Amino acid sequence: MSGTAVTRESTIEFRVRYAETDQMGVVYHSHYLVWCEIGRTDLIRQLGTSYASLEKDGIGLAVIDASVRYHSGAKYDDLVRVRTTVTDVRSRTVKFDYRIEDATTGMRLASASTTLASINREGKLVALPAEVRKLMEDARS
Amino acid sequence: MSGTAVTRESTIEFRVRYAETDQMGVVYHSHYLVWCEIGRTDLIRQLGTSYASLEKDGIGLAVIDASVRYHSGAKYDDLVRVRTTVTDVRSRTVKFDYRIEDATTGMRLASASTTLASINREGKLVALPAEVRKLMEDARS
Amino acid sequence: MSGTAVTRESTIEFRVRYAETDQMGVVYHSHYLVWCEIGRTDLIRQLGTSYASLEKDGIGLAVIDASVRYHSGAKYDDLVRVRTTVTDVRSRTVKFDYRIEDATTGMRLASASTTLASINREGKLVALPAEVRKLMEDARS
Amino acid sequence: MSGTAVTRESTIEFRVRYAETDQMGVVYHSHYLVWCEIGRTDLIRQLGTSYASLEKDGIGLAVIDASVRYHSGAKYDDLVRVRTTVTDVRSRTVKFDYRIEDATTGMRLASASTTLASINREGKLVALPAEVRKLMEDARS
Repeated sequence: MSGTAVTRESTIEFRVRYAETDQMGVVYHSHYLVWCEIGRTDLIRQLGTSYASLEKDGIGLAVIDASVRYHSGAKYDDLVRVRTTVTDVRSRTVKFDYRIEDATTGMRLASASTTLASINREGKLVALPAEVRKLMEDARS
Repeated sequence: MSGTAVTRESTIEFRVRYAETDQMGVVYHSHYLVWCEIGRTDLIRQLGTSYASLEKDGIGLAVIDASVRYHSGAKYDDLVRVRTTVTDVRSRTVKFDYRIEDATTGMRLASASTTLASINREGKLVALPAEVRKLMEDARS
Repeated sequence: MSGTAVTRESTIEFRVRYAETDQMGVVYHSHYLVWCEIGRTDLIRQLGTSYASLEKDGIGLAVIDASVRYHSGAKYDDLVRVRTTVTDVRSRTVKFDYRIEDATTGMRLASASTTLASINREGKLVALPAEVRKLMEDARS
Repeated sequence: MSGTAVTRESTIEFRVRYAETDQMGVVYHSHYLVWCEIGRTDLIRQLGTSYASLEKDGIGLAVIDASVRYHSGAKYDDLVRVRTTVTDVRSRTVKFDYRIEDATTGMRLASASTTLASINREGKLVALPAEVRKLMEDARS
């Protein structure tokens, strides 16, 4: 009756790959954006659809803005956890926030956010389809 | 009268690799951070040293903050140009700005900035060595 | 009493990342070698140690030879399975074979093998430590 | 008497990216396949066409087999040279060989070969178009 707000968060864990390290002995910084994408893919799946199926329907979500703050370096074979939430939904864009942490110790490794824009098959900006927008709004924290 | 301000900018060009594209048909967004690193490496070389030699001397520069705005998608085999400048120098950090553009048309593809912190061999934050700080300050635009 | 031969195989599953696709719409071919490394890491863990701890003890395993046959292209978000076995152990080298398959359908995606050489901290070829060699020999199929 | 055999070889140089190193302090082994692709792209361009334009015409070349022998580890910022030749042309496949070397010292870093199959837009194996086959045959060493 009272329209409870449900905050959805995806939590996914995986191990750091050797390929992701660099000669500093920690994960090269660009890979955190790949990890964000893993979290985003998982969150969309938990919302009841999948990014793969969105693309099949002709909807792409292209990253138009990304920022990452690096707090501590992830190391090879560490178990990493990515927590993903939706933080803003507009007619054509969705913003996701991420907290990346060491799954064993809980220590924060990085904080990130990305804004994605809805595009059609030709790569043009289009409004988010109503049902996708609703899904994202329902997930907004 | 003396004290001429010299703004240093690195300009480097290379072709987009097939490996850098994704199934959207454009470059996957995390690779732009790799391109920034290429620009940064080139700028440091032009300042008269090299990041490789800094590391041999025990000085690392670790990315602690990165942000990218994506304007237009780079495509396979496109010739890309990265323009890199130093925009801020502090006791322990240096900030670099990047403009990534299509080298053929001059169209802007992305704008980015990264802040790097000076670390020692153990990964601890340390002050930038005086000579490195001076190099960076001389290059500041 | 009779010294039964135990064949050890690691089986590990994960989803294809968007970053791993290319503009052909399938996984870019070099990433299969990264997946082999994931399988290898998992097999070594199942043998009772970890590659990370071997490195801490000063033992590196460097890939000196790799070959991959690609049978069918993995797609974004597919669940992939890597089966890894040890197929040859010599004084300084270990050979691993991999079968990479679609975890949902069982279809073979690729077959691969890599030979790794034991190196010390200076990158010089050295004999496999006796206990590592024994582990590998016990795992040999 | 006429019909001179012209052996074509592409030679291309570039610097090792920090992102390509791993915690062993050398280039992670899968990246050599990316470098082979750079050599292949360059060779096709020198033959008078481009792989990008082949794809626009609906012809894909998919890697179906790859092998690499690693001789010495490339390091960050090293100038690397890739020499690429066509070594076999069949109705549906082309084989390329690669010699990857340190451009400064000439030392061999890796030897590789890849076989690529001609596919159409649906990913089905098709015969190489006559003009592409002729180009490749003319380049065969």
